[in-house]
Amino acid sequence: MPNNKSWVFAAQCDSILGTVDVCTHFMAQNCLYIDEIQSFDDKTDVGFFIRIAFRPEGDDFDAATFGALFQPQADRFNMTWSLTAPDHRERVAIMVSKYDHCLNDLLYRYRTGNMLDIEIPLIISNHPDLQGLAEWHDIPYYHLPISKDTKPAQEAKIRELLEQYDIDLVVLARYMQVMSPAMCEYLDGWAINIHHSLLPGFKGAKPYHQAWAKGAKMVGATAHYINNDLDEGPIITQGIQDVDHTFYPEDLVRVGQDVERVVLAKAVRLHVSKRVFLSGGRTVVLKG
Amino acid sequence: MPNNKSWVFAAQCDSILGTVDVCTHFMAQNCLYIDEIQSFDDKTDVGFFIRIAFRPEGDDFDAATFGALFQPQADRFNMTWSLTAPDHRERVAIMVSKYDHCLNDLLYRYRTGNMLDIEIPLIISNHPDLQGLAEWHDIPYYHLPISKDTKPAQEAKIRELLEQYDIDLVVLARYMQVMSPAMCEYLDGWAINIHHSLLPGFKGAKPYHQAWAKGAKMVGATAHYINNDLDEGPIITQGIQDVDHTFYPEDLVRVGQDVERVVLAKAVRLHVSKRVFLSGGRTVVLKG
Amino acid sequence: MPNNKSWVFAAQCDSILGTVDVCTHFMAQNCLYIDEIQSFDDKTDVGFFIRIAFRPEGDDFDAATFGALFQPQADRFNMTWSLTAPDHRERVAIMVSKYDHCLNDLLYRYRTGNMLDIEIPLIISNHPDLQGLAEWHDIPYYHLPISKDTKPAQEAKIRELLEQYDIDLVVLARYMQVMSPAMCEYLDGWAINIHHSLLPGFKGAKPYHQAWAKGAKMVGATAHYINNDLDEGPIITQGIQDVDHTFYPEDLVRVGQDVERVVLAKAVRLHVSKRVFLSGGRTVVLKG
Amino acid sequence: MPNNKSWVFAAQCDSILGTVDVCTHFMAQNCLYIDEIQSFDDKTDVGFFIRIAFRPEGDDFDAATFGALFQPQADRFNMTWSLTAPDHRERVAIMVSKYDHCLNDLLYRYRTGNMLDIEIPLIISNHPDLQGLAEWHDIPYYHLPISKDTKPAQEAKIRELLEQYDIDLVVLARYMQVMSPAMCEYLDGWAINIHHSLLPGFKGAKPYHQAWAKGAKMVGATAHYINNDLDEGPIITQGIQDVDHTFYPEDLVRVGQDVERVVLAKAVRLHVSKRVFLSGGRTVVLKG
Repeated sequence: MPNNKSWVFAAQCDSILGTVDVCTHFMAQNCLYIDEIQSFDDKTDVGFFIRIAFRPEGDDFDAATFGALFQPQADRFNMTWSLTAPDHRERVAIMVSKYDHCLNDLLYRYRTGNMLDIEIPLIISNHPDLQGLAEWHDIPYYHLPISKDTKPAQEAKIRELLEQYDIDLVVLARYMQVMSPAMCEYLDGWAINIHHSLLPGFKGAKPYHQAWAKGAKMVGATAHYINNDLDEGPIITQGIQDVDHTFYPEDLVRVGQDVERVVLAKAVRLHVSKRVFLSGGRTVVLKG
Repeated sequence: MPNNKSWVFAAQCDSILGTVDVCTHFMAQNCLYIDEIQSFDDKTDVGFFIRIAFRPEGDDFDAATFGALFQPQADRFNMTWSLTAPDHRERVAIMVSKYDHCLNDLLYRYRTGNMLDIEIPLIISNHPDLQGLAEWHDIPYYHLPISKDTKPAQEAKIRELLEQYDIDLVVLARYMQVMSPAMCEYLDGWAINIHHSLLPGFKGAKPYHQAWAKGAKMVGATAHYINNDLDEGPIITQGIQDVDHTFYPEDLVRVGQDVERVVLAKAVRLHVSKRVFLSGGRTVVLKG
Repeated sequence: MPNNKSWVFAAQCDSILGTVDVCTHFMAQNCLYIDEIQSFDDKTDVGFFIRIAFRPEGDDFDAATFGALFQPQADRFNMTWSLTAPDHRERVAIMVSKYDHCLNDLLYRYRTGNMLDIEIPLIISNHPDLQGLAEWHDIPYYHLPISKDTKPAQEAKIRELLEQYDIDLVVLARYMQVMSPAMCEYLDGWAINIHHSLLPGFKGAKPYHQAWAKGAKMVGATAHYINNDLDEGPIITQGIQDVDHTFYPEDLVRVGQDVERVVLAKAVRLHVSKRVFLSGGRTVVLKG
Repeated sequence: MPNNKSWVFAAQCDSILGTVDVCTHFMAQNCLYIDEIQSFDDKTDVGFFIRIAFRPEGDDFDAATFGALFQPQADRFNMTWSLTAPDHRERVAIMVSKYDHCLNDLLYRYRTGNMLDIEIPLIISNHPDLQGLAEWHDIPYYHLPISKDTKPAQEAKIRELLEQYDIDLVVLARYMQVMSPAMCEYLDGWAINIHHSLLPGFKGAKPYHQAWAKGAKMVGATAHYINNDLDEGPIITQGIQDVDHTFYPEDLVRVGQDVERVVLAKAVRLHVSKRVFLSGGRTVVLKG
């Protein structure tokens, strides 16, 4: 599932005969060469999902014309779709508190282009601690402290910033605040959180301490979309690490951080390469 | 952590200065060569655990003399200990219902000696289905059907069989019955169960269906000792398998079975090689 | 990548505009509903590979009509293709010597249908040892001993049996004989071998002993197609197991056997579900 | 195998009766409480290896007195040993060329103390590229360019710096130079290299390209000590990553970098926690 320098078409609709054909026949007729195609039909929820990476055979391809021609076809199937250019880089806002392991990993990949072609126009935090790291990467850092009383104002400010910077995706890279229902709803479907347990196990606070108390022999991390249900949004990807009796809770925290950053980076990569689709409370991830 | 043809000494007691020395000095003085030693101190629960694999340098070693000489030393530390001969094979009773994947794996290892040096004097089941498999391996198969009314009698019969066959360890290889509190207490510390989820996630019935409903991207299995707290006994080992949206619940069941049998066989191997110690509700597993 | 009860269409040809469309448009026009589609273009070797799982919407679908209608389309692209019915079970011949770990695993899956829907019409061995295992599964066992002088005759007999039993796939489940070039050529593309190392590391004899001598911290296994180049046929899948200094060569052999059987079963499953394509000396495995 | 705030005693000698006792009895007599002990006897090479983590019960412990008292005991067994204080931080020199993924990871762990308690007094490179990264971490960066003619002078300068900075361990974090035999000999046993393949597979140049050409389904990395035999020094640890046909050589390079940095950081952690012992051309790693 490496990086791909093709155009990416992604779509979903109900399962009806012809859903694949309406996309692929259009592409053949418009001289768009298909590099890679994956589709999936969820037989339980009766949904169809497709991702096509393609390259125009000629030089005169443009997205607007594609849209104008394809939309009528899509309408026949009630299909929602998106088209992403090969050089497109998603605009990602990162939110953090004090932990820097996930931020450091994302910034490293951002800086070097390693497995993650994104823009990071800003970093938002309720603490000042990670400002230096942001500055070294020349990324604006917004310190928006929060208290019970200022929460509505702080969240309003965050929304303002996300809109001002034209953000496509919000990444909660260990942002240790419970957001208001309104804020969760606002972020529904375009914000990824990393939770430091293999959800739904060890929900809530201090999952590593819970894992230690239970004598768990593995700790994990889960990247999921934000929705109204705290720590219950659709899961994108998960990872684990073997542990044993020699790990005290503070050791689990440390070793778990390596899992968290790998899992979060992978989820962001899957999302920005248009491989993740929402299907009810679950996700379809077309990996190729 | 391969098989080992040494004598194995295993012990535990409170953490006090000299706990290692009382064992190792005794061995040096009695010309017992230490092949491998591991100890661990649980700083939270203040417990000491040690496992020593050794070979006598002379030919005249016998366990009775070892015991007679060592017991007074052990008494000074309130130490409980065991000594296991190189040719000792634990007597393991296997309990099953209808699923045969774990039983088949254990019998294969039993038959070939692959990674599991045990005796299997009998198999007990509440169903007749797996009798043929048992017979091909020349192992007595006791079909003890169970209903709400006959449960006390059936459990009494099981206890009788375990005692008659002089069983060291009971393995619940997908025995799909909830046992009575009295039976659980009877088996406390010498019965291993395999649960088809990464406990404490997805406790109780139909864990694979729960995992599917949550859109989990990994399914797991947990081998644990039986105690009074259903699905909550001390965890010995765990394993996982990556899955994705293409797995329906019945697929998770199938792929999970491969994890279950590997995890259960590993737990039995760890137990019979005297590497597992109980420490409160958790285990210490000295792997070497 | 679970089992699938759809028809499976698999094809490959050179990369030219329209290769996807010629398949998918045909299916739409013939009321064949696509459950799952994957394609891949190898940009290096300029090859196109596609796998489509579909279900006819009506009841009157038959393979012969499909073929008659589709072949002219395929001809336009020089496309080779196959169609596999949902209830088709590949006829697999297993060849063994004395080791039974791979055979036991394949027979278990065959017997229970666990992750492997195949027929096993016969087992061939150069030793009599595993006859009992075959008999318990009611599978004919051909003991064809081999010596330097009898090798041509023995291989001729094997070919005769494979033809007599109308075999689709030959699985060398630790068949410890180097076959003649003519035999290798005969089996090219329809025989899977399991090699007990992570090829191309530790080629040839006694790979676990080589791994021990090098102090390797992992041992692996490789399932690959047979071709003329000993231990060098196209790789289908690989697996590994962590090891450490406590594993002597004989321990590596034992722990490696668990990897071998998992890797071999997975390769057979991928092959019979028509997910593996040959692309020069490498494979394309469309996993979904 | 988490971090440990105990003193660490590590020793090795030939296998003779009493090797454990000479260490543990001494500790009991000197009121040193053993937190954790592991030993191993290599039955092939007849060597004994032990690691003991301990805490003095009193406040008056000092290493010099320990040494003065213990040395005569060690002499009886021809035992080489070391003692490491709980607050000791190994002085590690990092050598790099242009790739920064391993350096970035080591610096992150150094800066945050995550799973790696070390000092990094200097960074040496044959290229200027990574100077900015070093400076942000306030670490002196020595740019020592190299050509065929200047190699002896450059290596002499490196040795001078390692001595000037009193370095305990050299880490070649993708230092892309073949060092002279004299330099290799000088670094024998105290320099760790990361090789971007699962050695001994794909030795030498461009291992990811080799892996691609062979159609490997896994790529790996190996951390090993430097010795005279290029890419053949004793292996400390290895890691792998699954890949498939969609990965072109440049994708393997990228995904492999994540394995390399994890494997290298782990090897450094094992080394500085005194868990790695040399045993002929192999290593014994006492993990606990």
